[in-house]
Amino acid sequence: MAEELRIGLVGTGGIGRTHIERINTRLQGGKVVACSDPAAAFGMSVAEKYGIKGFENPLDMINDPEIDAVMCTTADPYHEEYVLAAIKAGKYVFCEKPLAPKAEACKRIVAAEMEAGKQFVQVGFMRRYDYGYLQLKEAVDSGKYGQPLLLHCAHRNPDVVAGWDNSSAVENSMVHEIDVLRWLLGEDYATAEVQFGKCTTKGVPGVQDPQIMILTTKSGVRIDVESFVTTHNAYEIKCEIVCEDAILNMPQPGYISISAGTQCARKEHADYVERFGDAYDTEIQTWINATKAGYVDGPNAWDGYCCQVAAAAASKARDTKSVVEVVYDPMPDFYKK
Amino acid sequence: MAEELRIGLVGTGGIGRTHIERINTRLQGGKVVACSDPAAAFGMSVAEKYGIKGFENPLDMINDPEIDAVMCTTADPYHEEYVLAAIKAGKYVFCEKPLAPKAEACKRIVAAEMEAGKQFVQVGFMRRYDYGYLQLKEAVDSGKYGQPLLLHCAHRNPDVVAGWDNSSAVENSMVHEIDVLRWLLGEDYATAEVQFGKCTTKGVPGVQDPQIMILTTKSGVRIDVESFVTTHNAYEIKCEIVCEDAILNMPQPGYISISAGTQCARKEHADYVERFGDAYDTEIQTWINATKAGYVDGPNAWDGYCCQVAAAAASKARDTKSVVEVVYDPMPDFYKK
Amino acid sequence: MAEELRIGLVGTGGIGRTHIERINTRLQGGKVVACSDPAAAFGMSVAEKYGIKGFENPLDMINDPEIDAVMCTTADPYHEEYVLAAIKAGKYVFCEKPLAPKAEACKRIVAAEMEAGKQFVQVGFMRRYDYGYLQLKEAVDSGKYGQPLLLHCAHRNPDVVAGWDNSSAVENSMVHEIDVLRWLLGEDYATAEVQFGKCTTKGVPGVQDPQIMILTTKSGVRIDVESFVTTHNAYEIKCEIVCEDAILNMPQPGYISISAGTQCARKEHADYVERFGDAYDTEIQTWINATKAGYVDGPNAWDGYCCQVAAAAASKARDTKSVVEVVYDPMPDFYKK
Amino acid sequence: MAEELRIGLVGTGGIGRTHIERINTRLQGGKVVACSDPAAAFGMSVAEKYGIKGFENPLDMINDPEIDAVMCTTADPYHEEYVLAAIKAGKYVFCEKPLAPKAEACKRIVAAEMEAGKQFVQVGFMRRYDYGYLQLKEAVDSGKYGQPLLLHCAHRNPDVVAGWDNSSAVENSMVHEIDVLRWLLGEDYATAEVQFGKCTTKGVPGVQDPQIMILTTKSGVRIDVESFVTTHNAYEIKCEIVCEDAILNMPQPGYISISAGTQCARKEHADYVERFGDAYDTEIQTWINATKAGYVDGPNAWDGYCCQVAAAAASKARDTKSVVEVVYDPMPDFYKK
Repeated sequence: MAEELRIGLVGTGGIGRTHIERINTRLQGGKVVACSDPAAAFGMSVAEKYGIKGFENPLDMINDPEIDAVMCTTADPYHEEYVLAAIKAGKYVFCEKPLAPKAEACKRIVAAEMEAGKQFVQVGFMRRYDYGYLQLKEAVDSGKYGQPLLLHCAHRNPDVVAGWDNSSAVENSMVHEIDVLRWLLGEDYATAEVQFGKCTTKGVPGVQDPQIMILTTKSGVRIDVESFVTTHNAYEIKCEIVCEDAILNMPQPGYISISAGTQCARKEHADYVERFGDAYDTEIQTWINATKAGYVDGPNAWDGYCCQVAAAAASKARDTKSVVEVVYDPMPDFYKK
Repeated sequence: MAEELRIGLVGTGGIGRTHIERINTRLQGGKVVACSDPAAAFGMSVAEKYGIKGFENPLDMINDPEIDAVMCTTADPYHEEYVLAAIKAGKYVFCEKPLAPKAEACKRIVAAEMEAGKQFVQVGFMRRYDYGYLQLKEAVDSGKYGQPLLLHCAHRNPDVVAGWDNSSAVENSMVHEIDVLRWLLGEDYATAEVQFGKCTTKGVPGVQDPQIMILTTKSGVRIDVESFVTTHNAYEIKCEIVCEDAILNMPQPGYISISAGTQCARKEHADYVERFGDAYDTEIQTWINATKAGYVDGPNAWDGYCCQVAAAAASKARDTKSVVEVVYDPMPDFYKK
Repeated sequence: MAEELRIGLVGTGGIGRTHIERINTRLQGGKVVACSDPAAAFGMSVAEKYGIKGFENPLDMINDPEIDAVMCTTADPYHEEYVLAAIKAGKYVFCEKPLAPKAEACKRIVAAEMEAGKQFVQVGFMRRYDYGYLQLKEAVDSGKYGQPLLLHCAHRNPDVVAGWDNSSAVENSMVHEIDVLRWLLGEDYATAEVQFGKCTTKGVPGVQDPQIMILTTKSGVRIDVESFVTTHNAYEIKCEIVCEDAILNMPQPGYISISAGTQCARKEHADYVERFGDAYDTEIQTWINATKAGYVDGPNAWDGYCCQVAAAAASKARDTKSVVEVVYDPMPDFYKK
Repeated sequence: MAEELRIGLVGTGGIGRTHIERINTRLQGGKVVACSDPAAAFGMSVAEKYGIKGFENPLDMINDPEIDAVMCTTADPYHEEYVLAAIKAGKYVFCEKPLAPKAEACKRIVAAEMEAGKQFVQVGFMRRYDYGYLQLKEAVDSGKYGQPLLLHCAHRNPDVVAGWDNSSAVENSMVHEIDVLRWLLGEDYATAEVQFGKCTTKGVPGVQDPQIMILTTKSGVRIDVESFVTTHNAYEIKCEIVCEDAILNMPQPGYISISAGTQCARKEHADYVERFGDAYDTEIQTWINATKAGYVDGPNAWDGYCCQVAAAAASKARDTKSVVEVVYDPMPDFYKK
């Protein structure tokens, strides 16, 4: 492998271009040297914009010997095809979350990886690299505060992208909590439920907002997550962990305080980029480093599968207004550490 | 009526004696001039301690012409008898919460008051007089932040009194939220549910702690309340109101910050007296003032009834692991403002 | 003495009327039963307003046998005359700060009290009763944080009263710090200095604002106090104590937080009444209680004298742009505890 | 110039090695490809440790055609020699602060740069790249809060390095404030003064700690800076800016809050690395980027000179217990933007 990791990126939409800029101007040890998109012409135009090689066909790029590793940032339904291609080509692949929309597709990726005899896939759950969650995990894992009993979380967005519907709160927004809380607590989920709060009159017509997802873990920890996606104010991520011996809470945003007009105010985060920009950097840098060293360090294909199983259970719970069990396949030894 | 309100107190346990001291050493315009207790000898000994008149029989005190108004601070099951006696005697009565353990008993008090043709009863829900809740209510009522959609509340105690069981979280602890949130939102409840978190290993053997109560209001606001009664740390009351246009949160405790040992710390409230001491003062002073002016100003018998209806629904929900409807009698015109 | 302390108040301006209302509607154990003012007709009209007895001549009121104790809330130059009259009449007197504008006048009061053989005078330094300063003093006195080395204080006002000039920052505003910090540290001052910051363009024409007063104590603690009296924003009192082993800071105001418009804000205090209202209540209630018990509990005439000595030194330092020594008479045994 | 900036580092002590690791493992676009030290053997051993080229003689490295740019991280007295050598070699040089201990030496560097006809030198004042100061500067520069009038700053260290003496507070610690506040306010200083607080009993024997430096700017802004270097607790940097229309304050550290043991606590920064680690990264990355683009972007040689002039004035003020004027040479057009 070349000294600098030569990355081919497939999926040149917003998040893809963000990653190109991140890797090529801020991070170290890798370069996005080529890109491609299922919409071939679009991919080529982005390649031209960044002065990197364009491939009409993403599969050609993935298989090109000049490409050491793959980033997959396409629309979700395309993930499976390109991730499988990367595995087949024996190349490490970073796939934006979700690994695939359906758990069955995730399982096919898991199967391919196992057949290849080696882990190649990392899924883009960047919150595991966030300074706030990392501190919370360290505190929980220290055992100093007793075991966690309850988690109260909130995921608040100023506004949503086009096409947002009732299923999006679970599948596009709270899916982040589904992954990061499983990692934080180090255990799988047992049940999922979704309840609706009073609906804002200032949201997307026809869409229920806010929604509350309730998860329980196998050991009995109860989690509630508020998803409120049209606050028209700040982007806010809350995570309060009620342990036997202490209550743990997320850090405050690192903004100056301004006392004026008879109030003392501090800016809140404007959006997920402002909130998690550093986590993205750390995530991708860590992936580059691990890839060059020849292993998968972050959330892997099995994590990607587990996340979709829980998301599917939560979606079913929402649609059926019931508590739904989260049932995973047994974890293969292949993924046990 | 004498210039200074002459109060007879029945129930000389801890909260009763606290009120005697409060009224006789800090507040203005009233005096506890006599006391009594269902345990006659105990009541007489407390009277002697404070240098006030003792009555062997609480009913004699209530009916004594030297007594202008009554405070009832007995154990809950005795409330009904003494409150009814005060109504019959045509005297204003302040009754500690709950008005009576059963909604049916509350209804008998309501009926007696209506028959008497005048409101005499105030129930001791002191949180309505707390600076934090008052600010939250003012903010909600201002309409500046849009309608409330969700409430996230917590009620955390360092430890519990003897005899605490699985029903106590709803009936002794979260009953405060049941009253104050109905007042804060200005509407009745529609449903109640109780879910259990993972149980602390450091609580009362056999008692589930923490517990989560979920209430919805008639307009659809969703409320979750965490009750965690054996934190072994601070006493903490949280109330976060998610409105369409803002998130509102309780004030921080008014303690100095101390930066030492590589951390910056601020004391938390030690117990409910430290947290709500001012609210108790305001509550009782307001009651004295209103009583002298000849009207009921605070939470009345109907509020006391409504609270027990919702608490009973929550208890049933807990025992049956189901969502239970909260069904009130229609509000009599007598209680409409 | 009657069961209820019968108070005669001289000086029926704003602060005087506030105290009448405070004592007669909120506090316990005393009543303002009469009032008077150097402007006789004004005093009589206030008496009528509150339905209490008016005296044309304040001295007649002070000497009236129906008056148990005196409050002096006149303009500063009148304090001496009425305080001396109260001492002569053998009556406890609460005198708003300053005891008298000049240290010499304070010494005459001290002398009169010593001649009378008993302390009668309390000076209205209400900050000693503030929950914030009390906590800071408790922390300092605990010895847990080592000895204090530096104090950083600020005294910020939205705006000033008419007639404010360059001397007012020390004499009307920072005089509060002069008293409360001497009490907090338990020692006298050694030197005073006043420096000017850049002058706001939005203040009183011709008046330097902000100003910085630097005090040192006899043991060497260095104090800086910012006085900024035309912030046009909040009323803010800061007090940061740098100890050998910890940094101590004032509590935050007890207001709810509101997250809206991409910021999280908390109201600040609007004025000194909002900030120190509770301290005034505690101060006066404590004075009533001590007066009925027959002793002086709060800041006494000697404190009043010491404060004016330091204020005079600071004023001289400001006018001469130099560091001025603070030189007190030796404390008479009469005032030693 | 090569695609990747080839950096030669002179001065392989602690800060130098930190920069090697920073550049070679985290930043982008440059590599420390060689190092050297005035203590030749030591420099060679560090080179070996990092697997980069070692030079016995730093001047040989600076003049080597394989070196594009120079980092100077030697002990302060050596800065001048190597910076001058880099200028002579026509190479950009990043010099850790101070540019040189004496203002006269700084002037020789300024003169060399002017003679060379081009700016080559950046001085390592990393606070200008700190998220906190950047926000404060943006707020001040916005003009939204009126002009700054006062600054209250503190610079608190858990402990000091060996050899700390009375002059170190100004010259090693508050020199950071001297640079960053001049940048923040955009103007030069007029006067300097140093006052001593009460001395901690837990510091370095014979060294006065804390110390207070008072600076005024040409427009009249008054700045006080507390230096307390043996807190034995956290590392804390405060900067409160009192503007005509608002009070601005530094962000809080981004640590989780932990409520346990009846207090709510948040970790403080442990040391300057934890507090300013991100600022160092940004500083060096920005320097690499600007160097490759062919210009000096950060604090330049003139800034380095100005800083030493003010530091010398503060030192003289401390030694003479007087207010000392800060007198700069007129700024050459060469440094005007």
